Amino acid sequence: MLDWEKLLEDDVFEIAGRRFRSRLIIGSGKFKSFQETKEVLEASGAEMITVAVRRVNITDPTKENLLDYIDPKKYLILPNTAGCYTAEEAIKTAMLAREATGINWVKLEVIGDQKTLLPDMEETLKAAKFLVKEGFVVLPYIFDDPVYAKKFEDVGCAAVMPLAAPIGSGLGLQNPYNLMFIKEAVSVPVIVDAGIGSAADIPPVMELGVDGILTNTALAEAKDPIRMAVAMKYAVIAGRLSYLAGRMPKRTYAVPSSPLKGVPYKS
Amino acid sequence: MLDWEKLLEDDVFEIAGRRFRSRLIIGSGKFKSFQETKEVLEASGAEMITVAVRRVNITDPTKENLLDYIDPKKYLILPNTAGCYTAEEAIKTAMLAREATGINWVKLEVIGDQKTLLPDMEETLKAAKFLVKEGFVVLPYIFDDPVYAKKFEDVGCAAVMPLAAPIGSGLGLQNPYNLMFIKEAVSVPVIVDAGIGSAADIPPVMELGVDGILTNTALAEAKDPIRMAVAMKYAVIAGRLSYLAGRMPKRTYAVPSSPLKGVPYKS
Amino acid sequence: MLDWEKLLEDDVFEIAGRRFRSRLIIGSGKFKSFQETKEVLEASGAEMITVAVRRVNITDPTKENLLDYIDPKKYLILPNTAGCYTAEEAIKTAMLAREATGINWVKLEVIGDQKTLLPDMEETLKAAKFLVKEGFVVLPYIFDDPVYAKKFEDVGCAAVMPLAAPIGSGLGLQNPYNLMFIKEAVSVPVIVDAGIGSAADIPPVMELGVDGILTNTALAEAKDPIRMAVAMKYAVIAGRLSYLAGRMPKRTYAVPSSPLKGVPYKS
Amino acid sequence: MLDWEKLLEDDVFEIAGRRFRSRLIIGSGKFKSFQETKEVLEASGAEMITVAVRRVNITDPTKENLLDYIDPKKYLILPNTAGCYTAEEAIKTAMLAREATGINWVKLEVIGDQKTLLPDMEETLKAAKFLVKEGFVVLPYIFDDPVYAKKFEDVGCAAVMPLAAPIGSGLGLQNPYNLMFIKEAVSVPVIVDAGIGSAADIPPVMELGVDGILTNTALAEAKDPIRMAVAMKYAVIAGRLSYLAGRMPKRTYAVPSSPLKGVPYKS
Repeated sequence: MLDWEKLLEDDVFEIAGRRFRSRLIIGSGKFKSFQETKEVLEASGAEMITVAVRRVNITDPTKENLLDYIDPKKYLILPNTAGCYTAEEAIKTAMLAREATGINWVKLEVIGDQKTLLPDMEETLKAAKFLVKEGFVVLPYIFDDPVYAKKFEDVGCAAVMPLAAPIGSGLGLQNPYNLMFIKEAVSVPVIVDAGIGSAADIPPVMELGVDGILTNTALAEAKDPIRMAVAMKYAVIAGRLSYLAGRMPKRTYAVPSSPLKGVPYKS
Repeated sequence: MLDWEKLLEDDVFEIAGRRFRSRLIIGSGKFKSFQETKEVLEASGAEMITVAVRRVNITDPTKENLLDYIDPKKYLILPNTAGCYTAEEAIKTAMLAREATGINWVKLEVIGDQKTLLPDMEETLKAAKFLVKEGFVVLPYIFDDPVYAKKFEDVGCAAVMPLAAPIGSGLGLQNPYNLMFIKEAVSVPVIVDAGIGSAADIPPVMELGVDGILTNTALAEAKDPIRMAVAMKYAVIAGRLSYLAGRMPKRTYAVPSSPLKGVPYKS
Repeated sequence: MLDWEKLLEDDVFEIAGRRFRSRLIIGSGKFKSFQETKEVLEASGAEMITVAVRRVNITDPTKENLLDYIDPKKYLILPNTAGCYTAEEAIKTAMLAREATGINWVKLEVIGDQKTLLPDMEETLKAAKFLVKEGFVVLPYIFDDPVYAKKFEDVGCAAVMPLAAPIGSGLGLQNPYNLMFIKEAVSVPVIVDAGIGSAADIPPVMELGVDGILTNTALAEAKDPIRMAVAMKYAVIAGRLSYLAGRMPKRTYAVPSSPLKGVPYKS
Repeated sequence: MLDWEKLLEDDVFEIAGRRFRSRLIIGSGKFKSFQETKEVLEASGAEMITVAVRRVNITDPTKENLLDYIDPKKYLILPNTAGCYTAEEAIKTAMLAREATGINWVKLEVIGDQKTLLPDMEETLKAAKFLVKEGFVVLPYIFDDPVYAKKFEDVGCAAVMPLAAPIGSGLGLQNPYNLMFIKEAVSVPVIVDAGIGSAADIPPVMELGVDGILTNTALAEAKDPIRMAVAMKYAVIAGRLSYLAGRMPKRTYAVPSSPLKGVPYKS
């Protein structure tokens, strides 16, 4: 067993009763080919890959199908409702995906604005309630609103997936306080789902105690996606280990004094 | 060979003709015991450890000696002049260390202010000139001043070691522009030498193309120094791979537009 | 007319048809006395003061009453529903305030979490709909969620009041992108309503084109509230003028190149 | 007397025995004409204007001369040595300016790098020593290095002028800690001299207790330089008043707790 595997052996990451060794989740959009998607997935060490039902074919076996590349015994395929603008559309898309694939997990996205792709919390909550009742394991993409995060847990979502920054922006974590507040507000796993731009954006999020990271554009648009996938694999491990290790306090001077700046932490 | 080893196989890190596989350097101060120092060093994967000649015994074989714990065939012991406030003191300390240990490398520190432990560039440059002439491999701890960094290269230093933030502060990188300017100004390796507070502080520095990282307090004062050492080992690897992979551009909106915020990068 | 008055003469700040010369709004909590509240209000140049109906007496004329200190001909008294945790409570509080004072404006607050005092967008929207129908001029305190901001405009709110950071935190603007997105999403005035810690926090918000600023704790807890009130008066003016003046582009080098870091701006 | 004038009446800003009411200093480069320079100067309320001897004519009365526009009884003309790359060049330039104008003040600039225009501290100190002995009132443009700042005070400089960011970058304050350390290290006035991009960049600097601000590009390149000049006039006033007022502590939660992020302050 490798050094990090040993140190993380008892550090369970579990969603809806399913255990994962990797805390990294890969999105499948924007890659050059299904072949590249597969190679990036393997390099990243991720065990879960999310697929936009409306954009990537996983429902029509007569055409080129991502499922021909990804072994569903090794990887959890997580259908998502990207491109839906109402609860109704999202519900239909989730039902269609389940029917075609037998997968009852869904990453629920209901977009509220075409320009920023920010989510519509009201519509997303409506769809989440419905899909939970229909027996889905629901992982909603949400705004980094701690009060709303709690509502999603309360209606039975298996995890919450707040953004770090807008989808596809690569801006990295904008508001560490909100993620910290969300971690305090809910008991289900918190997975950061948008805004990661490179490996360096991952450890600051993981050090807040966030449970996992989903990224797509930062992989697909890196000059070398495979190298970035391996970078992110270790960025997640480094961030998790650092969180568990417990960092030193921040000080203004060489002699202990008050912290002034930086990501939130608790002494 | 592991995934990251394969991807970094040709990525040479060399100082004064000596090659290192690890880009992490460990400081030996503030640990509970020489035994803990040794364990952290091993866990970190570092191949170089710096020792404050005035604080840690490496010159008197009749007392408990760090060299009894660290195998000089496996690790480069890098004596440093911490605690010196003039060029003269630093020169004397470096000479003493070389005489006692036979090591002709020195991490040169000349402190200019007791409260902040910020370096005195004028005195440090004076000492560097002298020690280079005396045949030392000189790695000076410097302020993040790009113009001065070039002067140290010009007098023959083997690397430059700018701070990210004050020694022992744990504040993380304060000014990414200065590190970027230093990387452009010099050809010798650039190693960031102070201010790292946790693993998350490392990849943003490495993504600037910085060659290596030295850290001490962040390890010694972590609640679990071993776990932090492994976290930092992978943070350095993740940051280096991410730098080599080439990150995506930053955008304000889902559709490509201008970057607004964050660490510097070149498109 | 003073220099800034001349330059801002045509720069109208209007809510629900009422014009204001000052873009600063003062909260009335936490001051030592009604007398101090009055002096700070006068020093700040604000023309609007918000009052927590549940905490500051404006409804019972038999007790010491803020309205005895503030001239309603000179200042708009803006009752708020601070301390309410449901739409129902907020509606009741707003109705009570209108009945007692004849004021049909309300700053609507429905808190979703006791620890962070973050707002509950779902309950706030419910109350907003109701109160707009009842003829109120509704200014809701909201999370910095651009999609929800639009919903509040759509139900007829006269302005939206997103937070810069949690109430009473003094942390300053956390996410400039969200404010920028809100300004693009809505046509009604955008007034930043929480998180200001000092005068320096104001111009970065105003330069985003935000229409006004509300602050309370930063005044009440300043060592010298009068001096801080005057500081904030001019910080708002400076920020507004700077926004209208149009800033230079950011550059990495002395020769024009790309912006890397800082508050968002459009070239 | 206006409100801010009254509150700042006893707040003396003095350099080398000369008192100034305004803490803003204007650079004279890059404007469209001497007429615009003059109008911006008047609008800004500044009482001091710096002039690059090598670029703006103040020494040859036979050509169009800035001194024909600026009344030396109302404004202190501060010649500067911009464009000099050695101590020797800077000394010559300062001597030439004094001879032609009779002004014995000099803003000393010795640039160390053409691309970043960062100063060369070694050469600048050499020139400062010489010019102080020659009877000049020397205000050196320096890197934000607290140890070097003290050296300039020690050789007799009348003030120190550290950068906030590179000249002409408009990036705003990059490292608040260094300015805080400089204020603690020296007794002479500290004037921030480069990197201001808009009015919003000024109050965060002033709240650190910095004594004054010099800006040029941010005025000359604003779309409306007059409006920006008035914005900056009030940004300086707001920042100074806020510093004197004493800000509230930062908190993570509505209930008092620790500050996490932002500009340094002392509790």
